[in-house]
Amino acid sequence: MSRTTDSERVRARYWIETAYATADAAAVMAGEQSSGTFVALPGETPELLERAAARVEWIEALEPVNAPSLPGAGRPSADTSVWNRAIVELSWPLENIGTSLPNLLATVAGNLFELKQFSGLKLVDLDVPKAFCERYPGPAYGVAGTRRLTGVEGRPLIGTIVKPSVGLTPAATAALVRELADAGLDFIKDDELQANGPSCPLEERVAAVMRVLNAHAERSGKMVMYAFNITGDIDEMLRGHDLVLKAGGNCVMVSLNSVGLAGFSALRRHAQLPIHAHRNGWGYLNRSPALGFDYVAWQKFWRLAGADHMHVNGLRNKFCESDDSVIRSARACLTPMYPPPTPGCQVMPVFASGQTAAQAADTYRALGSVDLIYACGGGVMGHPDGIGAGVESLRLAWEAAVRGVSLDEHAGRHAVLRRALQRFAG
Amino acid sequence: MSRTTDSERVRARYWIETAYATADAAAVMAGEQSSGTFVALPGETPELLERAAARVEWIEALEPVNAPSLPGAGRPSADTSVWNRAIVELSWPLENIGTSLPNLLATVAGNLFELKQFSGLKLVDLDVPKAFCERYPGPAYGVAGTRRLTGVEGRPLIGTIVKPSVGLTPAATAALVRELADAGLDFIKDDELQANGPSCPLEERVAAVMRVLNAHAERSGKMVMYAFNITGDIDEMLRGHDLVLKAGGNCVMVSLNSVGLAGFSALRRHAQLPIHAHRNGWGYLNRSPALGFDYVAWQKFWRLAGADHMHVNGLRNKFCESDDSVIRSARACLTPMYPPPTPGCQVMPVFASGQTAAQAADTYRALGSVDLIYACGGGVMGHPDGIGAGVESLRLAWEAAVRGVSLDEHAGRHAVLRRALQRFAG
Repeated sequence: MSRTTDSERVRARYWIETAYATADAAAVMAGEQSSGTFVALPGETPELLERAAARVEWIEALEPVNAPSLPGAGRPSADTSVWNRAIVELSWPLENIGTSLPNLLATVAGNLFELKQFSGLKLVDLDVPKAFCERYPGPAYGVAGTRRLTGVEGRPLIGTIVKPSVGLTPAATAALVRELADAGLDFIKDDELQANGPSCPLEERVAAVMRVLNAHAERSGKMVMYAFNITGDIDEMLRGHDLVLKAGGNCVMVSLNSVGLAGFSALRRHAQLPIHAHRNGWGYLNRSPALGFDYVAWQKFWRLAGADHMHVNGLRNKFCESDDSVIRSARACLTPMYPPPTPGCQVMPVFASGQTAAQAADTYRALGSVDLIYACGGGVMGHPDGIGAGVESLRLAWEAAVRGVSLDEHAGRHAVLRRALQRFAG
Repeated sequence: MSRTTDSERVRARYWIETAYATADAAAVMAGEQSSGTFVALPGETPELLERAAARVEWIEALEPVNAPSLPGAGRPSADTSVWNRAIVELSWPLENIGTSLPNLLATVAGNLFELKQFSGLKLVDLDVPKAFCERYPGPAYGVAGTRRLTGVEGRPLIGTIVKPSVGLTPAATAALVRELADAGLDFIKDDELQANGPSCPLEERVAAVMRVLNAHAERSGKMVMYAFNITGDIDEMLRGHDLVLKAGGNCVMVSLNSVGLAGFSALRRHAQLPIHAHRNGWGYLNRSPALGFDYVAWQKFWRLAGADHMHVNGLRNKFCESDDSVIRSARACLTPMYPPPTPGCQVMPVFASGQTAAQAADTYRALGSVDLIYACGGGVMGHPDGIGAGVESLRLAWEAAVRGVSLDEHAGRHAVLRRALQRFAG
C-alpha cells in the first residue's frame, strides 16, 4: 500500500465508520464497486479480478467511537462496542470507467453508501486522471474570465440576489435591478426559486432586465453581470441561454442538483456565457457528518464539467455550516486540479447567506484571496441609508481587509461602513 | 389549516426535528423556499407575499426526543433539552414554479435542508398538479408494456445481472449472456459499473450481446429483455439508445443520480425503448433517518420524467435497508400518481440485492402483486446445479407464492427448489 500516484487510476478517499476490521470493510467497498458479488461466479478468473478490481491503496486509522453514527449497519457480534473510523483510499483502473463523469459518479459514489459493513461513509476527496480534462471542457471563464467581463480587479465582485425570491413580475424585477445597478453592484443573480414560472417567465424577465442593464452600461460604462436562472430541461436551458446571449446578457445560472451532470454538461458544451452554479440541495448531500459528500470531492465533478462560479455558503451564515467548512470549500474551488500545462479548472467561489460588511475581513483573512463573488441580500438592501450605501459599505469593508486596516479604524473614517456595522454586526 | 386538496398547488410533506416551536420552524421553511430573507425588503408587499408565499398547510406532532439527530442546528437557549418532531405539509402556488421537474426539485428540496432551525429534515411525500403529467411523458412502457415486450404474464420477470460487474470483454459478456438466455431468464441487465469504458465499449457489447439474443429468439421464440447501461453524457446516451434499438434490443438502463433530471428527461423524449432506472447512490440521499428523501417522494420525479422500471432493493438484502422500507418503496411504484383519466405513471419495481428463491413468498405476501422484476445474481448463478436450475428454482418459488403453497411443501415436490433453499436460505 503506497501513496505514489498512478495517473491512469481514479483515486477516491473516504471517511468510513465500521464495526468490522477496517481492512475487511474497505475490501468490501472495493469489491462492491468493481467486480464483487456475494458468491464466486463462473466468469471470475484471477487475471480478470487483478485487471478490473478496485484496490485499497491505504488506510489511516482515526479515533474509534462507542456507538454507530447511522443505523442499519451490521456488527461482528451482539456485544460489539467499538466502531472503527478511518480514512481509506480506493483506486480504479480508468479502463473500467472511461472518462465519463456520470459513470465516474456511479463508481465512486454508487451503491457503497448502503453497504451493511458501514455505519458511516463519506466521499471526502477524489483525483482523476487528466484524461477527464481532455474530454470535458472545464470552466470557460472561471476567475480571469469573470474579471474580464466585469472589469473588477483587486477585490471581490460585490453581488446581490433579487429578493423577494419569487413574486416579482418581470417589470418589478427590472425596476429593482435598475436600483441595484445604480447602487454600483458588480453582480446580480436570480434566486434559485425563480426560473421560468408563469408569474415571471424567463423570456420577459430577460427582456426587461437587459433593457435596464444595457441602458445602465451605456450611461455608466459598466456592464453589471447578471446570472439569469435558466434551470430546466435541456431544450429549455439551451433556449434560455440563447435568449440571454441575444439580449446582451453575460451570465446564466443553474441549480446543479436539479439538472444533474448530463444536463449540465450539455449546457456547458452549448454555452458561450459563464455558468453560475448554484448548489441548493447541498444539505441533503452533506449535512450528516457520517454520510454523503465533502464539498472538496463534490465540486470537482462540476469544475471538470465546466462551472465558472460555485456557491460555498459564507462565514457566520444563516445555515448550519461551520466557518471552517466554508473556507475549506472556497479554497478547494481556487486550488488547481492538475499541474500546468493541464488546465487547473479553478472556479470563482460564491460567498452567500447572511453576508454583510461584518464578515469581509474574516473572509479575506481565512481565504487569503479576493477571487470570489461576495453576494449579500439584506447586507446590501438592508443598509439604513439605502442600497448604494450597502454596496459602498461592502467595498469599504473589503478595502480595509485587503489593506490590513482594522474594520473599526476604517469605520471610524467612513460613516457608511460604520452604519453598516451598527446594523449588521454582533 | 386544512387537508383539502387544491389542484393548482404543489404539496410536499416533511419529517422535521427542531428545538423551536414546530409552527415557527415550519414558517421559516415556507419563507426560505418562497419569498423570505433575513430582513424585510423594499419589494415585499403584503399582496405579493400572499400570492407567492409557500403555506404551512398542517402540522402533525410526533413524539419529541432529548437530543438532536444532526449537528449544527440552533436552539432557543443553552438549556434546551427537547427536540420536537413533526410531519408538516407545505404548499406552493404552481405559478411560482411552472411545470418544471428540475425547478420543482429546487423548490421542495433546495436550501431548506441546511436551515439552522432543523436538526433533521426529510422530504417524505409529494403531490403535484396533473399539469406536470401533461408536460412530462411518464413511463412509455411501465408494467403493461414490459410484459408485452417480454411475453411474461402472471408472475414476475425473472432477471439477473451480468457479473462480474466489470472486467468482462464484450465477447465474454456475450458468452455469459448466451448461457443466461439458455437458462430461461426473462430479463438481464448490465451492472451499473459497466457502461462504456475502454475495457468493454458499449457499441461492441451491444453488437455481441444482441447477436446472441437475436439468435436465441429465433431458436426459442423468446426475446430476452436486456437492459444495456447507456449512462453517460446526453449525446452518448442518445447514441447508445439508438445503437441498442438498431441492433434489435429492447431496453436501456441509466443511473439516475449520475445523469440527473434534465439529462434523464432528454433521453426519455428521444427514447423508443423502456428505460430501466438504477438508483445507485440512493444511500447518500436516504440512509440518514433525519435527512434527505423518502423513496415515496423521490420516485415520483422519475416516474413523471418517464422511468419504466425502478430499483427498490429487496427483502433481506445485503444492504442496510429494512424490509418494510423496501416494500413501501415497491408499493409506491405501483400506486397511481393521479386518478384516471390522467395517467398514473406506475412503474415496475425492480427487486435486487441478495435475492434468491428464499425471499419470493415473503415478497409476494408483503407486496400483494407479481408486477415486478425479480433480479438475482448469486441466486441464479450460484445454484448448485447450474444457472438453468437457478432460474427454475425462482419460477417455482414464485409459483408456490402465487398459489399459496408453502415453500417447504413445494420444495418437497421439486428438487431444484429444495436445492436452492438448502444453498441460500437461513
